[in-house]
Amino acid sequence: MSQVVPNEQSPVIELAIDLLSRASVTPEDAGCQKLIAERLSAVGFTNESMVFADTTNLWSRRDTNITIEDQAKTPNTPSNNSNDIVFCFAGHTDVVPVGNLDLWNTPPFEPTIIDGMLYARGAADMKGSLAAMIVATERFVEDHPDHQGSIAYLITSDEEGPFINGTTKVVDTLEARNEKITYCIIGEPSSTNSVGDIVKNGRRGSISATLTVKGKQGHVAYPEHVKNPIHLAMPALIELSQVEWDKGNDYFPATSFQLSNINSGTGATNVVPGHITALFNLRYSTELTDEIIVERVEAILNKHQLDYDIDWTFNGKPFITEHTGAEHGFLHAVSQAILTVTGNETQLSTSGGTSDGRFIAPTGAQVIELGPCNATIHQVNESVSCDDLEKLVDIYYHCLVNVLCSHK
Amino acid sequence: MSQVVPNEQSPVIELAIDLLSRASVTPEDAGCQKLIAERLSAVGFTNESMVFADTTNLWSRRDTNITIEDQAKTPNTPSNNSNDIVFCFAGHTDVVPVGNLDLWNTPPFEPTIIDGMLYARGAADMKGSLAAMIVATERFVEDHPDHQGSIAYLITSDEEGPFINGTTKVVDTLEARNEKITYCIIGEPSSTNSVGDIVKNGRRGSISATLTVKGKQGHVAYPEHVKNPIHLAMPALIELSQVEWDKGNDYFPATSFQLSNINSGTGATNVVPGHITALFNLRYSTELTDEIIVERVEAILNKHQLDYDIDWTFNGKPFITEHTGAEHGFLHAVSQAILTVTGNETQLSTSGGTSDGRFIAPTGAQVIELGPCNATIHQVNESVSCDDLEKLVDIYYHCLVNVLCSHK
Ligand SMILES: [Zn+2]
Ligand SMILES: [Zn+2]
Repeated sequence: MSQVVPNEQSPVIELAIDLLSRASVTPEDAGCQKLIAERLSAVGFTNESMVFADTTNLWSRRDTNITIEDQAKTPNTPSNNSNDIVFCFAGHTDVVPVGNLDLWNTPPFEPTIIDGMLYARGAADMKGSLAAMIVATERFVEDHPDHQGSIAYLITSDEEGPFINGTTKVVDTLEARNEKITYCIIGEPSSTNSVGDIVKNGRRGSISATLTVKGKQGHVAYPEHVKNPIHLAMPALIELSQVEWDKGNDYFPATSFQLSNINSGTGATNVVPGHITALFNLRYSTELTDEIIVERVEAILNKHQLDYDIDWTFNGKPFITEHTGAEHGFLHAVSQAILTVTGNETQLSTSGGTSDGRFIAPTGAQVIELGPCNATIHQVNESVSCDDLEKLVDIYYHCLVNVLCSHK
Repeated sequence: MSQVVPNEQSPVIELAIDLLSRASVTPEDAGCQKLIAERLSAVGFTNESMVFADTTNLWSRRDTNITIEDQAKTPNTPSNNSNDIVFCFAGHTDVVPVGNLDLWNTPPFEPTIIDGMLYARGAADMKGSLAAMIVATERFVEDHPDHQGSIAYLITSDEEGPFINGTTKVVDTLEARNEKITYCIIGEPSSTNSVGDIVKNGRRGSISATLTVKGKQGHVAYPEHVKNPIHLAMPALIELSQVEWDKGNDYFPATSFQLSNINSGTGATNVVPGHITALFNLRYSTELTDEIIVERVEAILNKHQLDYDIDWTFNGKPFITEHTGAEHGFLHAVSQAILTVTGNETQLSTSGGTSDGRFIAPTGAQVIELGPCNATIHQVNESVSCDDLEKLVDIYYHCLVNVLCSHK
């Protein structure tokens, strides 16, 4: 093992280390956004800090050909005029807690490079990506000061938290003033074995419910006087867990239903309880909507003639960024950038949990997620390859080129 | 309403009031057994106090024609020789807690007669019965000093509690010295509308289990990496709840299966838990045994290929005291006593929970439960009819006559 000092020749490693030295556990930002804002300001961006409750967010934008005021006057769907394009990098400065500190080989907020890997909480998720975006943007603006369209940053500090005062509120603010994002790259760690091998071009929707089925409490010795809510609910719960919700489609696997919690009983063995509570979640494809799911679930519960209450939680609708087929489509531009830098074809995926893409995509933006390898995220000894961060700078740079210069 | 002082002409009311004045909430006896022992001693009984841990029990016996030592030498099944007969009254001096004191119209341990009803905690369950047994025994011994066989009392103070240091331990002690009970009347409040209308001539068996089914924990977003234990367990649990265990028989309703508790989940909506725990209970007829139930339940779990642990609790085997058809059978003797006193035919029943009969019956004893009306037991303002207690004295008296004098 050889421990090395940051290479002054590598701006991305230097910036990553600066960000990773700040202990920004959700909802803390710990000065990360100030640092980002300063770097962006230096290359012509206008920064707007948006604070909602405990959460600091940054909206930053660089326009060459049109001003924000002009943009605000344009119609609310992305125009075909490439000067109207808003290319947005999105991400988060917050990190998950460090977990068991004893299991870290190096202090989680003292970034350390060992054998070409940069270790720190947030290295892969996602301060490495943020550093790569900024360095790529700086280089791009220097190389192409007269690029088309606009470049924007949407940075939050609650992505790992409750999702209440972060991206969703920033998007609400932008929508209220009819400010649109055309294309968005979220720096979430999408890669599996080598950087850029996988790009997420969508995410499944997520919907949860708390179901309470009522019965009639009583002593087990008098089955004729009770209505056992466990017995009553189970056939419906089985049907919900076995029904084919859809077959998925080209981009999504079939919708899945999972019971995550089920509770009933007084604790006493000889008492039939009065009710049962079950929590379940569906991860669903673009073949379904919240409305269809609610309707189908309630139809099954009604068919079983249950006396029930149900409380729905809508966690996020599914989104998909499709290949347009056009040579200059966004997905094509991103794939080409990855091919140029790594020599490899990227794979599209919609697997995994939800992301802040669910808040951005509904505005009409084309959203993809592209970042480093995710093997160590949310774990102790989180790390990112320094080489991958250098490649990520190049990939993001070529994305900017392909989208904002290709029409010249 | 007229409140009256105890009638000095009524020994049963006087004794009931004396017992009911003692606050003997399980496992307390509060001197009840000492009082009973003194009364029995005065009519020729030999008392044996059996203390196990926190529980005081009384075994008391009056032999006319044979001594305890002789009895110990007889074979361990009841003989046909009526001199070997041991007629046992069984019951408990403990009572359930008073519940909400504010809801009592009279203090629960200050027995009060209003409009012919005696109010106190334990009036119906079962100090009224104890008083009636003792007064009946005193009268019987006076009228028939040379009766056949023996009369015994098996009194505990943990019937309402954990069932550990009461009747079961006394029975173990008697069994160890080969001392047998031939016939047993337990004073549990068996009646519904009028005293003696129902006699319990058996009870269902009770068996419980805690079942843990193992799955594989994971995030709901990756259904391919989890094994949802709720989904896995439900088909087996439904089968258990729907299977026909038996059809019952002349004395018992069909065996019933009830899930009383079911718990699974981490609390988080988006995590599939690693295991599910279910508690269930079967109340079963004499058509089944513990062994058959265990075998059938485990066959169903195995058929569903579950990875499970199961912990069985054997609460009590079913017992039944059948009409022998013989004119002088025990059940006939009891029914005739009720008919003589009340003019009504009694009904046999095996419904309700378990009783201490489950401990006495397996020794070969013929056990029945006969006591006052049970409408108010375990409730506030528990009460018993003074008239019914007088009748109960007569019924118990005639039971003694029919069993211990009829062969003369
Ligand atoms: Zn992230
Ligand atoms: Zn009782």
